[in-house]
Amino acid sequence: MSDVKTAPNPGNLPLEGVLVLEFCQYLSGPSAGLRLADLGARVIKIENPSTGDACRILPIKNQWIDDDSLLFHTINRNKESFTANLKDEKDLAFIHQLISKADVMVNNFRPGVMERLNLGYGKAQMLNPGIVYAEISGYGSTGPWAKKPGQDLLVQAISGLMHTSGNAGDPPTPFGLAIGDIFCGAQMVQGILAALFRKKRTGKGVKLELSLMESLIDFQFELLTTYFVDYEQPKRSENNHAHALLGAPYGIYQTKDGHLALAMIPIADLNKALENPDLSAFSQSDVFAKRDEIKATIAAILIHENSGYWMEKFNSCGLWATEVKNWNSLKASAGFQVLNTVQEIKISDSKTIKTTRCPIRLDGKRIFSPKAAPLLGADREKIIADFNLKEPDHETT
Amino acid sequence: MSDVKTAPNPGNLPLEGVLVLEFCQYLSGPSAGLRLADLGARVIKIENPSTGDACRILPIKNQWIDDDSLLFHTINRNKESFTANLKDEKDLAFIHQLISKADVMVNNFRPGVMERLNLGYGKAQMLNPGIVYAEISGYGSTGPWAKKPGQDLLVQAISGLMHTSGNAGDPPTPFGLAIGDIFCGAQMVQGILAALFRKKRTGKGVKLELSLMESLIDFQFELLTTYFVDYEQPKRSENNHAHALLGAPYGIYQTKDGHLALAMIPIADLNKALENPDLSAFSQSDVFAKRDEIKATIAAILIHENSGYWMEKFNSCGLWATEVKNWNSLKASAGFQVLNTVQEIKISDSKTIKTTRCPIRLDGKRIFSPKAAPLLGADREKIIADFNLKEPDHETT
Repeated sequence: MSDVKTAPNPGNLPLEGVLVLEFCQYLSGPSAGLRLADLGARVIKIENPSTGDACRILPIKNQWIDDDSLLFHTINRNKESFTANLKDEKDLAFIHQLISKADVMVNNFRPGVMERLNLGYGKAQMLNPGIVYAEISGYGSTGPWAKKPGQDLLVQAISGLMHTSGNAGDPPTPFGLAIGDIFCGAQMVQGILAALFRKKRTGKGVKLELSLMESLIDFQFELLTTYFVDYEQPKRSENNHAHALLGAPYGIYQTKDGHLALAMIPIADLNKALENPDLSAFSQSDVFAKRDEIKATIAAILIHENSGYWMEKFNSCGLWATEVKNWNSLKASAGFQVLNTVQEIKISDSKTIKTTRCPIRLDGKRIFSPKAAPLLGADREKIIADFNLKEPDHETT
Repeated sequence: MSDVKTAPNPGNLPLEGVLVLEFCQYLSGPSAGLRLADLGARVIKIENPSTGDACRILPIKNQWIDDDSLLFHTINRNKESFTANLKDEKDLAFIHQLISKADVMVNNFRPGVMERLNLGYGKAQMLNPGIVYAEISGYGSTGPWAKKPGQDLLVQAISGLMHTSGNAGDPPTPFGLAIGDIFCGAQMVQGILAALFRKKRTGKGVKLELSLMESLIDFQFELLTTYFVDYEQPKRSENNHAHALLGAPYGIYQTKDGHLALAMIPIADLNKALENPDLSAFSQSDVFAKRDEIKATIAAILIHENSGYWMEKFNSCGLWATEVKNWNSLKASAGFQVLNTVQEIKISDSKTIKTTRCPIRLDGKRIFSPKAAPLLGADREKIIADFNLKEPDHETT
């Protein structure tokens, strides 16, 4: 496809030689595994033989690749699948041997599940004192929320985040993407890599813990630090809201034919660009205290002309404004195309999907990872051979 | 304060001994530096002597700590400040000596600025072949957007992200937090740590590049992969929207006294919990195709009773639902308190602020970093002494 280019990966990816075992489902843990795989690690999903990662049967927009959802393919490209019944002695022995050879194991089961399966940190440490053991939960492993479902929308709801988007009169407005899962996965990658770095020096492993809730609290650190001053709930602006703590004009404005985003722009500069006397009533010291009034004034001005008309004025003054795009207009932009963020993944001779690539560039080269997500258990025999896994009776270690 | 506990840090933080030079302002780069400092690195902000990081004078809600904004304090706790006029030969010589001793340098200037200052990757590599050189831009260093302001709201606007939140009839709805800056900073930490890990093995440095735009495209990977199937813009639901690609009941619903979040709940289970005949007209195969109708039906039911009434029914059936909280009700929750996410930072004998801590736990211990953000240039003399920096005439290397 003309919008998809691929190139050889930069050789010697940073995590080459690192073995990661992923005891995870859905998005938070698997998104961490995905980034580790992007950066060169060998990531093996440990999946139950009957259904595997529950994400395999979670459709979005009812799109499937044979028996697996497109969503599963999106999150699990570039990984391997090892099926194991963790309640079966033989399979558990295989897993214990894999743990003894791994650098990292990640799980996002509810607290206590790994321990009940004889896969808790204590056991893992016995098998491999240098193991980096990473555990993602919804709300930590203790306290009244420990057993609450650790699901993205529910954590968003509890974290207060839903009062940061939308206008003041709107109901609580969720982020339309799984911010809790994705941000927590990204932060767990930070913990894992810092631990691997220390392990190179000290040989020491570690148990890392992170919860969706703690990630979303950290995510709100700017607003929460302000809240802690007076415990006053920050107020969304009445109109054109974009950030509870920033003054006018910060927000999204409708024009005759579209929408514009206006970021930090000094009121005098805005006034000069818009050449409208209505704005001259306000000064820079008003931008937070009178933000609703100023924003309403700006909105009443911008609605009368097309976006292009206004952007010409903003650009000629060097102001921080841009047209709001959707994916169609984004995709059509030369600026998007030059970023080359899309990669094609071959599922079979007749099927391909297109998805995003790892966003980080190394020495000017983009990282493409064209390997498709594995079929359930696809790599079990190969992994048994690669690591010379033995059945319990024949176990030599 | 009763809601703030502190405890000694876990000894031997993973990044102890790592030296990071931060040539950054505002949020994206400094949030990366903050996490590296949390994890034990020594992070030195290189700031111009007249104003320093521009964030020092960016107020949110007009809150200040003496001459610096509370926002600056939030993002820059636990760092040091070295003032240097990068156009002055003597100061530049100091910086070159620091680079020769550093592990990592991060910048978020516009493309080309570091090169013009004789601080580009080529020069840095000459001074220190093992340097991990991390560069954050708005839209990459080439292409038509390279010189566009790399500001969070503008990047959100261009990335298509604003069409993921809000209901179908709403205007483009920004995330009310600086998701582009924060997510890009988090991903740059991933790149830096992976590079440090490889450097331990190979001694090799690397130039890492990441842009706010590429981070926000990666952030939308679930939705974009679906979009790439048919290039059909995903549709927000007409009402109670929470995710463009998930079926009913996924969304936020008003009750008589508040709001509830309903995540993935099979329609039959929901029907059983609500005991309302209006829902029985729908089956599981309708949940995406008829999501607006189903959501409207649920909304019409839930509005008639209080949240507590409904939560009792949902909880007794084990369904994925919860009450939507704001920060006041979050703060009052025992579940929040047990997470112990708040730390107190002493600014001076008479001033403290409260802010969040690093969300990652190591061996069961939380990481607190009670050192305040530095005054502009506060650590210059100490750093000159610590690293034995020489003026150009006396330079021995």
